[in-house]
Amino acid sequence: MARTGVWLIGARGSVATTAIAGAAAVRAGAAPPTGCVSDLPDFAEAGLPGWGELVFGGHDIVDTPLVRRVEQLVRGGVIPARLADLVWTDLTVAEGEIRDGATRDPARLIGDIASFRRRNRVERVVVVNVASTEPACPPHPAHNYLADLDRALHSLPASSLYAYAAMRASCGYVDFTPSTGAWLPALDELAHVIGVPYAGRDGKSGESLLRSVLAPMFARRALDVVSWSGTNLLGGGDGATLADPAAAASENAAKQRALEGELGDRVDGRVHIDHVPALGDWKTSWDHVLFEGFLGTRMTLQVTWQGCDPALGAPLVLDLARFMAVADEPGPVQALGFFFKDPVGSGPHGLAAQYDALRDWAYR
Amino acid sequence: MARTGVWLIGARGSVATTAIAGAAAVRAGAAPPTGCVSDLPDFAEAGLPGWGELVFGGHDIVDTPLVRRVEQLVRGGVIPARLADLVWTDLTVAEGEIRDGATRDPARLIGDIASFRRRNRVERVVVVNVASTEPACPPHPAHNYLADLDRALHSLPASSLYAYAAMRASCGYVDFTPSTGAWLPALDELAHVIGVPYAGRDGKSGESLLRSVLAPMFARRALDVVSWSGTNLLGGGDGATLADPAAAASENAAKQRALEGELGDRVDGRVHIDHVPALGDWKTSWDHVLFEGFLGTRMTLQVTWQGCDPALGAPLVLDLARFMAVADEPGPVQALGFFFKDPVGSGPHGLAAQYDALRDWAYR
Amino acid sequence: MARTGVWLIGARGSVATTAIAGAAAVRAGAAPPTGCVSDLPDFAEAGLPGWGELVFGGHDIVDTPLVRRVEQLVRGGVIPARLADLVWTDLTVAEGEIRDGATRDPARLIGDIASFRRRNRVERVVVVNVASTEPACPPHPAHNYLADLDRALHSLPASSLYAYAAMRASCGYVDFTPSTGAWLPALDELAHVIGVPYAGRDGKSGESLLRSVLAPMFARRALDVVSWSGTNLLGGGDGATLADPAAAASENAAKQRALEGELGDRVDGRVHIDHVPALGDWKTSWDHVLFEGFLGTRMTLQVTWQGCDPALGAPLVLDLARFMAVADEPGPVQALGFFFKDPVGSGPHGLAAQYDALRDWAYR
Amino acid sequence: MARTGVWLIGARGSVATTAIAGAAAVRAGAAPPTGCVSDLPDFAEAGLPGWGELVFGGHDIVDTPLVRRVEQLVRGGVIPARLADLVWTDLTVAEGEIRDGATRDPARLIGDIASFRRRNRVERVVVVNVASTEPACPPHPAHNYLADLDRALHSLPASSLYAYAAMRASCGYVDFTPSTGAWLPALDELAHVIGVPYAGRDGKSGESLLRSVLAPMFARRALDVVSWSGTNLLGGGDGATLADPAAAASENAAKQRALEGELGDRVDGRVHIDHVPALGDWKTSWDHVLFEGFLGTRMTLQVTWQGCDPALGAPLVLDLARFMAVADEPGPVQALGFFFKDPVGSGPHGLAAQYDALRDWAYR
Repeated sequence: MARTGVWLIGARGSVATTAIAGAAAVRAGAAPPTGCVSDLPDFAEAGLPGWGELVFGGHDIVDTPLVRRVEQLVRGGVIPARLADLVWTDLTVAEGEIRDGATRDPARLIGDIASFRRRNRVERVVVVNVASTEPACPPHPAHNYLADLDRALHSLPASSLYAYAAMRASCGYVDFTPSTGAWLPALDELAHVIGVPYAGRDGKSGESLLRSVLAPMFARRALDVVSWSGTNLLGGGDGATLADPAAAASENAAKQRALEGELGDRVDGRVHIDHVPALGDWKTSWDHVLFEGFLGTRMTLQVTWQGCDPALGAPLVLDLARFMAVADEPGPVQALGFFFKDPVGSGPHGLAAQYDALRDWAYR
Repeated sequence: MARTGVWLIGARGSVATTAIAGAAAVRAGAAPPTGCVSDLPDFAEAGLPGWGELVFGGHDIVDTPLVRRVEQLVRGGVIPARLADLVWTDLTVAEGEIRDGATRDPARLIGDIASFRRRNRVERVVVVNVASTEPACPPHPAHNYLADLDRALHSLPASSLYAYAAMRASCGYVDFTPSTGAWLPALDELAHVIGVPYAGRDGKSGESLLRSVLAPMFARRALDVVSWSGTNLLGGGDGATLADPAAAASENAAKQRALEGELGDRVDGRVHIDHVPALGDWKTSWDHVLFEGFLGTRMTLQVTWQGCDPALGAPLVLDLARFMAVADEPGPVQALGFFFKDPVGSGPHGLAAQYDALRDWAYR
Repeated sequence: MARTGVWLIGARGSVATTAIAGAAAVRAGAAPPTGCVSDLPDFAEAGLPGWGELVFGGHDIVDTPLVRRVEQLVRGGVIPARLADLVWTDLTVAEGEIRDGATRDPARLIGDIASFRRRNRVERVVVVNVASTEPACPPHPAHNYLADLDRALHSLPASSLYAYAAMRASCGYVDFTPSTGAWLPALDELAHVIGVPYAGRDGKSGESLLRSVLAPMFARRALDVVSWSGTNLLGGGDGATLADPAAAASENAAKQRALEGELGDRVDGRVHIDHVPALGDWKTSWDHVLFEGFLGTRMTLQVTWQGCDPALGAPLVLDLARFMAVADEPGPVQALGFFFKDPVGSGPHGLAAQYDALRDWAYR
Repeated sequence: MARTGVWLIGARGSVATTAIAGAAAVRAGAAPPTGCVSDLPDFAEAGLPGWGELVFGGHDIVDTPLVRRVEQLVRGGVIPARLADLVWTDLTVAEGEIRDGATRDPARLIGDIASFRRRNRVERVVVVNVASTEPACPPHPAHNYLADLDRALHSLPASSLYAYAAMRASCGYVDFTPSTGAWLPALDELAHVIGVPYAGRDGKSGESLLRSVLAPMFARRALDVVSWSGTNLLGGGDGATLADPAAAASENAAKQRALEGELGDRVDGRVHIDHVPALGDWKTSWDHVLFEGFLGTRMTLQVTWQGCDPALGAPLVLDLARFMAVADEPGPVQALGFFFKDPVGSGPHGLAAQYDALRDWAYR
């Protein structure tokens, strides 16, 4: 398959930097593609772009060089020191493809992507948003129809402006964060008009991943979940954003939707998100499930997950780029629901069924 | 459908007593069938026997009356006090159908089952072993061929003698424990000769249930499980039996087989079983999973499960009786692997796939 | 020692009912005094009133009879069924000593306590507040001086009006809840004027108890606690009250004060309180502590506590009644800080030091 | 105070290397003395040797240079990379003071220590055993009397031969491991004859540390601990040694002794030790405590500790060297029981009381 461009919004963030450095390490044979679903034997014949066929670029609003970011990630235990030197050349190449994202001018954003595509002679570019989570976007009438939107681009949150630019540049768009991104009727309309796919949203890599296998377990065993409570401790920038009550409420609602999709709407319980700066790129979640068995006997399940965001998220970003490179349907790609907390459309919520849907789609 | 007999080996045990009392409560509309997989909407059209069509009897070697056992289970928080009076009549009826199991005479065991069937005019009887777990059975040459076995019945462990009697009485046989039961070539031969189904073994209701959804989660996300360690604290009779090093080794091996079925044979780690008598019918398990993500970053998952054996096991025993009542294939019923830790045959290990297989089979 | 009256505010609540029933069971030799600190050998010679010397009465605003409340507690697994019949007579006696607490008339409250004292010929009465937690009380100028307060009793929250009545009736007063109670300068003045002791506040029986031994452990090992996060899942009435953001904020602040007392003010982290009605009288807390060892290495401690409020609180209420019966200092009794989350005065915060202070005081 | 020599048995191990590197970093002001009890304000006036007054040397049977070991510890996340360069000179100095420990010749061992003392002009040397844990030592008649021992030195396990050499060289001896060390009557006699102190054994830095604060909590609250079960997952060399059934049994017994010292001998439960090589220098323990409150209500506490052995142990080794430098009593130093799992003598088991005893002793 021809070379594929991966344009990362938030290209200097932890997840993006780890994706760029990791792809280089895998390509060089210096690290196995652990955590990359697209590299499982199940997808070997799906015609996905190879590791040597991915070219990276992106937008960011900070200017810390990628090599500095890698050093920070080495200190944080996310990237092994021995790989840092090895990927220096690839980082330098990607560095040359990162543009200042601090603009509201769509023409500039579109131009940046288009010139990346031309310069690297890549047939297809996938834009993936891995920037910090935005506050929830207030409704605006111009967000419903493309005709209105084109005259009201100033009303768009940054993630949606990037989605707009991606689509106008004829690229597929993926929202790996809970930000608004392509989740507006007018942008869905644009995706269909241009004929580009989009996917999202909010990469599922911790507590939500667990819930997507544990909730079906209770459902299939006819056990009655009475309450499902959770606490998430996060460091880093997203910790600060998500611990904000409004963002937390939105996250909470998304998690409850996922539970209810499997268990019905009877489930009590809340999800807390706490910012613990010292955790850095690490995340700890504790879930407490109270459930009833035969004759109403109450039992509990408790789960503690200690995960490293870039180590879980970066391979999924690479997966999404590879799968989107072969997506040819305009509009939302439901089959990628496997990767997201709050997937578009009416697909299955359980992870096993989502995996089967992904595999079927890859060989459609 | 016609009435179905459920003949329980260990009919006065916690799981059996809860199954008998609970079936009565469900039939009376006094309790919902929580934990009964066979009552999920997915199986509504599968032609399973109804709650009013199950008739209970069985063997046991102790003689504590069922009503006494129910009182004990009320005190232990397994059966709600308000149900105890309600099911008194049903317990008394079942009490009249329990026979002394302290015999090695197969003719008597077969006769007991046959007369239960005649007396209650039930078309079909399913025999379910829920007696205490036996020590592992040493190999014996006569266990390989039916022709030899018929002359060496004295060499069989109790669970296998019951399986023999069940088959000779033309009944399906289920092993809900890790005991040998029907797991001998000569008994498989007998099942085919007589034309009866059998299933097992070892009901999956706690740590193993969790593993059967968590292991596929790691596999489908291409995460590399480095070690999976577990500790089980059990009270009751099974706690004493399973904490024995030989039994623990066998349990350990079964759990590792299940993990390896999903994850490959690279997984380090052991499973401990401790007898904590004060826990009674309750069980606590702690699992610690060390896994690697992208670039080898190490992360952990910890799971604590606090379950009540009869509240989880009794509804599965009822499920198995209902599903076996419609099983018409001679020999092992692979499609019931959903219920077992160490299922017969080469079916899937993941719970989601096992559920799909069960549903497909129910509507075959 | 002469007989001692125990007047419970919230006398029909779970903790009060369990205290009354349990004291009867212990007196009858039917249950050991598990959880009663005052019954440890260390206090055998402290001259505390005996189990046969406690007489119970109190106020409540509901009228469910104590025998009904005991039945509910039996169903909830808090009181063993076998004890319910045994303590019937004692419950009936206490029932006759409970008065309607739904009044704002201090004269009536004082009269109720005084007539309880006369009728039972008890030398000393200790009033203990175990009613539901109140919302935080807004500041009021009349709460600073007794002279002003006597003309502004309408401004007092219920817990403080009870404290006022208790002191006016020459009784010691204990606040086992986080409500305002005696925690107003004017009431402290009253305690000194009348010459009665008071103690509080907020019985320490779960997460806070653990923190009072774990925080000193880190301090004495010179380990640097970076963050301490907690989630509490509570059922029952207090769950609803404490999950209210204002009450939670107050609880949060009290818990942080206790931590800072041991560890300094460097500790990050929050405490969440969630109402999970199905938990009833049970409480689950999860604490996550991130700490640094030598050369800044980050490590973690996680603690899960599953406690039953009345089983932990009721014996402490009996302890407090017994210790207060021998307290002869007017004003706050600092030596009882062992029992409280937010103790009055400047005593030690670590549990071991608090215990030593209690023992020294008992033999002062 | 005059300079103090610290002679480490196992000088190239993780704990020793971290102690040497860390002491250099603290001396240079590049790291705070986190985890060093001897640096708490409580001991500021105790006349302990300063950070600049410690000189390091030792025996080891491997010859990996200290600078290589530091690199490994940097990769394992135990020592920050930024410190590695900084302490290079100190490591090189210590490197020059490490002698081959693979000898059974006591004269050589004694000579090595004596020449270290002369060469560095240190007044006092403390020998600390931080080598791998040995298997349990079988009883031998010559271990009871010094007169017999001198003719049977070949019968001593290595740790005891080192203790013998240390004492003969007029040095205090500390056993930071569970090995036999000075724990033989003949060596106690030798300590008194020579007039040197010794201390041990088995540094308390994880599960045992927690138990030493949690067990007194239950005792002081009169709560009845029914069972206390534990699982330890360890990597590294000690993991392999301690997972051996005999070593585990000995560890188990020591832990039960500590519990019983606080709670009485009623406590059920076992401790498991599993070797999980991938954990390296890290250790995870899970404790499950089942306890009864008032009226026999059963409740649970669960604790998970994720600790890094060198980050916890190295500062304690430095503490012990500093405290032993001022110990002037011959024989066992009971006041150092604060540091050990299985302390010599009849001192208190609770951590708070042990701390008080340590402080009192430091200012005796």
